[in-house]
Amino acid sequence: MTLSEIKVLTSSFENRDVHLFGKDFLLTWEKSNDELILILELAELLKKMRERNISPRCFDSGLAVSVFRDKSTRTRFSFASAANLLGLEVQDMDEEKSQIAHGETVRETANMISFLTDIIGIRDDMFLGEGHKYMCEVGEALDEGFKTGVLPQRPGIVNLQCDLDHPTQSLADLLHLKNHFGSLENLKGKKIAMTWAYSPSYGKPLSVPQGIITLMTRFGLDVSLAYPEGYNLIPETEQQAAGFAREHNTGFKIVHSMEEAFSEADMVYPKSWAPFNVMQKRTSLLKSGDTEGLKALEKQCLAQNAAFADWECDERKIKLTKNGEALYMHCLPADISGVSCKRGEVAQDVFEKYRILTYKEAGYKPYIIAAMMMACKFEDPAAVLNALLLRKSNRVL
Amino acid sequence: MTLSEIKVLTSSFENRDVHLFGKDFLLTWEKSNDELILILELAELLKKMRERNISPRCFDSGLAVSVFRDKSTRTRFSFASAANLLGLEVQDMDEEKSQIAHGETVRETANMISFLTDIIGIRDDMFLGEGHKYMCEVGEALDEGFKTGVLPQRPGIVNLQCDLDHPTQSLADLLHLKNHFGSLENLKGKKIAMTWAYSPSYGKPLSVPQGIITLMTRFGLDVSLAYPEGYNLIPETEQQAAGFAREHNTGFKIVHSMEEAFSEADMVYPKSWAPFNVMQKRTSLLKSGDTEGLKALEKQCLAQNAAFADWECDERKIKLTKNGEALYMHCLPADISGVSCKRGEVAQDVFEKYRILTYKEAGYKPYIIAAMMMACKFEDPAAVLNALLLRKSNRVL
Amino acid sequence: MTLSEIKVLTSSFENRDVHLFGKDFLLTWEKSNDELILILELAELLKKMRERNISPRCFDSGLAVSVFRDKSTRTRFSFASAANLLGLEVQDMDEEKSQIAHGETVRETANMISFLTDIIGIRDDMFLGEGHKYMCEVGEALDEGFKTGVLPQRPGIVNLQCDLDHPTQSLADLLHLKNHFGSLENLKGKKIAMTWAYSPSYGKPLSVPQGIITLMTRFGLDVSLAYPEGYNLIPETEQQAAGFAREHNTGFKIVHSMEEAFSEADMVYPKSWAPFNVMQKRTSLLKSGDTEGLKALEKQCLAQNAAFADWECDERKIKLTKNGEALYMHCLPADISGVSCKRGEVAQDVFEKYRILTYKEAGYKPYIIAAMMMACKFEDPAAVLNALLLRKSNRVL
Repeated sequence: MTLSEIKVLTSSFENRDVHLFGKDFLLTWEKSNDELILILELAELLKKMRERNISPRCFDSGLAVSVFRDKSTRTRFSFASAANLLGLEVQDMDEEKSQIAHGETVRETANMISFLTDIIGIRDDMFLGEGHKYMCEVGEALDEGFKTGVLPQRPGIVNLQCDLDHPTQSLADLLHLKNHFGSLENLKGKKIAMTWAYSPSYGKPLSVPQGIITLMTRFGLDVSLAYPEGYNLIPETEQQAAGFAREHNTGFKIVHSMEEAFSEADMVYPKSWAPFNVMQKRTSLLKSGDTEGLKALEKQCLAQNAAFADWECDERKIKLTKNGEALYMHCLPADISGVSCKRGEVAQDVFEKYRILTYKEAGYKPYIIAAMMMACKFEDPAAVLNALLLRKSNRVL
Repeated sequence: MTLSEIKVLTSSFENRDVHLFGKDFLLTWEKSNDELILILELAELLKKMRERNISPRCFDSGLAVSVFRDKSTRTRFSFASAANLLGLEVQDMDEEKSQIAHGETVRETANMISFLTDIIGIRDDMFLGEGHKYMCEVGEALDEGFKTGVLPQRPGIVNLQCDLDHPTQSLADLLHLKNHFGSLENLKGKKIAMTWAYSPSYGKPLSVPQGIITLMTRFGLDVSLAYPEGYNLIPETEQQAAGFAREHNTGFKIVHSMEEAFSEADMVYPKSWAPFNVMQKRTSLLKSGDTEGLKALEKQCLAQNAAFADWECDERKIKLTKNGEALYMHCLPADISGVSCKRGEVAQDVFEKYRILTYKEAGYKPYIIAAMMMACKFEDPAAVLNALLLRKSNRVL
Repeated sequence: MTLSEIKVLTSSFENRDVHLFGKDFLLTWEKSNDELILILELAELLKKMRERNISPRCFDSGLAVSVFRDKSTRTRFSFASAANLLGLEVQDMDEEKSQIAHGETVRETANMISFLTDIIGIRDDMFLGEGHKYMCEVGEALDEGFKTGVLPQRPGIVNLQCDLDHPTQSLADLLHLKNHFGSLENLKGKKIAMTWAYSPSYGKPLSVPQGIITLMTRFGLDVSLAYPEGYNLIPETEQQAAGFAREHNTGFKIVHSMEEAFSEADMVYPKSWAPFNVMQKRTSLLKSGDTEGLKALEKQCLAQNAAFADWECDERKIKLTKNGEALYMHCLPADISGVSCKRGEVAQDVFEKYRILTYKEAGYKPYIIAAMMMACKFEDPAAVLNALLLRKSNRVL
């Protein structure tokens, strides 16, 4: 890695619309395109540094607290890896082992875990209207704590998936596309099919498709969102994507046929989710603790899903794509027909063909998270990278 | 931070009655006043160093093992933060994931987790007569392990709350008072009301009030301990506090009225606990596994508590304090009426007024724990701080 | 520690049959004697360095992932200590908190946890035919991930106990013997009794006795394996031990009397295990989810064990050993009669006499694991040690 690569970054930062320092990273649509590009560039530089055995450790101590309100493998390890790479120690906030049950408020807990904390990563994707709200609430508590002198620093929040967006996923996906197709420029005008796919499970979050349609439109991709009638996303996010498409002179359309979306697509992202109205009902049943109602809803929803079991990404549908070889994408784990379930989102042969590519896609996530951490904690991340390069500490002796 | 601040510390250490090196920190009343003051001073210096971005990392590797036999947020994160600040990695001893059920003895486990361990933090506050005993047992096992060459170092134990004392809490409280009132000297003669308060829960440990009355009397505070008849603490700790009051020419009295304790108080610490005799019964029922007996005891105890629901720290009672503006203290989380319970220890408006101050109070704990760790592991902590200042490593690049 | 100690190591490496770099450490019998000796030597040097306060930290960041599919105290802390000593951060792969239930394959998970991971430690010892297979499957997935560019490095796997072998235990045992008897040379011709012992529990793995008989024969010890008729180990491992005995001109015999094995033994290792055929039945019942069958098997097996309750290592049997003072060994925790159970593997007075020695035996494990990590990740570990010595970083300031 040469200094010139960093220099390019440094100079490219000037005159850019970048205000990530001291800000939480909750939703990509709150960030400017320049800010998103900075995250991608930082992520790539951190990846290169590590590959060349240059340690990007920029903290001598400090905690990176993770709060997982849902199961996770990839994101958990990505967060831990990112924190460790920069020198922060992960401390998991396990709500079962804490005194939250004793009546702590979010406001209080947010401060109690933050006295020596630089970053808080939160996954809260289970209930519509909850995850993002919770992160904002934590953020306000941290603002107050910092302003009143409770906290010597204001920890930055990284959204590790909420009900609205999954920015570490969508940006990792975008970085994958950038590398696969050569540049962000090359992505312009390419067609991506973000489509619902059949799964025998129920209650999958909407944040991945919402994150994809709102992000890809901004980078000039022509987005086709496909789902069976009634399986729509949160209406505001669909409108957001439509607005971005207009702003960036590209297409965004909603269709109700997987085939139509796949037709001539350059990349396809077939992934199951629960319809917005089901998620709304589920959230209110959960709030009222209506176990019977939940069982009935699950049963009804699975029956409804079954009517669309042909929404599977199989070889026949892949043939409809550009030259029959669109890039298959997935956030993993996929429901693979005949592997993880009888019938699922993707046929076994299709998944197998693209499997390694989906692993590479996932491999960008630790660096995207590390970039978000750095951009939040350092006013001039390029200068920090420069200092790290000059320091020449090896990651492995 | 100037070298002179450290120098003052160094020279002030000479001729002092300080023998913390290599010793466990279990009960404040086993320590000299000079030793407690040293902990406070070290804690403040570590806090200042970190705030000025000077890294106090003094371990290149080493484990800080935590054993939590009760839920915890604050103390868990404080311990993790303290360890991380000094360069130790926290490893939680989760008894469910270990082989203790396979018949390991305390003696054996203590050694097995200590081969490369510098500090062991233990919370064991559930049963009267157990927590402190357990810590001593661990300590004896470590002594034997070190003496016989099993362990290359003798890990120091930090009491993170036992049945008798909660020294990391009470010393954080004292440091908060020192800063709030300007100096330890200023605290002399000030009246503190340590009072029982109503809570709809049951079985809360006695260690906080016991820790407060035995510590504050030693620093010249005039302590009023208030509780309904029959809600006394462990008699020995009440006697200990009375003895310290005599020794330090200050007052210690037990009253049975919250109002009387609050009257002209400079600080109030209203906090629920289970009466000593209930805790005794509960401990023996738990030992005999008498589930029915436990349920009956809980029911009876909650009914008894309900008779004292007016023991709430409300605005009317605060008006009785010195100029109507005593400092409200709490170890958190508090049972706040109308927030975490219908009726609790403190009225919502009172808590809200002092909320930020209680957060600051909690914020001293990580540094108190770090100071205990350093004082235990370094013969001359002032020299270590000096070396750290000269090294000039930034915490954040 | 002098440079000469390292130099000896360096030069002794030349012309040796050592190919540990980049290889997993799964079974001792896949390694050459030279490779095993290297692990012992590295472990001892790391132990000495740490005791002399020289930090052997050779990673500035990186994860050491642990996967525990069975309870563990010793090995969990040994792995954490080893990783921390070298500068790696332990991240536990808790399968309950992950999405493995969502249908992830082993192949996928192996990659997902490895993007920034240097070492993966796995304990999977519950089912015959499973643990070793699982580790190999993970290893193949990592090979593929590395070859296809998914992973920037190929994490090394350390077997923390499988169904076949427990190499970190057996090598720690061997290092203990080396130090106790002065040298590896001194061990030649010494008689070790690896014997079954009575325990009121059921289903204990076979990997410890299998690890001992296959390792000790290779270092010239005369091995007597003793168990009641029908309590044999996996036949292949018994044959492996017999083959090693022939190859190294020493003895290996199977007897059905504890007394016979103890007779004139220099060291005894009395330890319970479940007979091979019981483990086979148990594995197939577990696979078919036959709860009733499992209960019946446990009952039958415990009844069968009870017939051999006199297979206890008591003072009378110890008297049969060489000069009545053979070295008692155990991997801990032992089932001690009158302590952890009514009647168990060892009499209380015998265990007490050797207790501290068993703790020392366990104390080698962190260093054995650290040595395995280093030998896997560095092509020339002696050069690394040399560089570490020259760097002169203190572990504790």
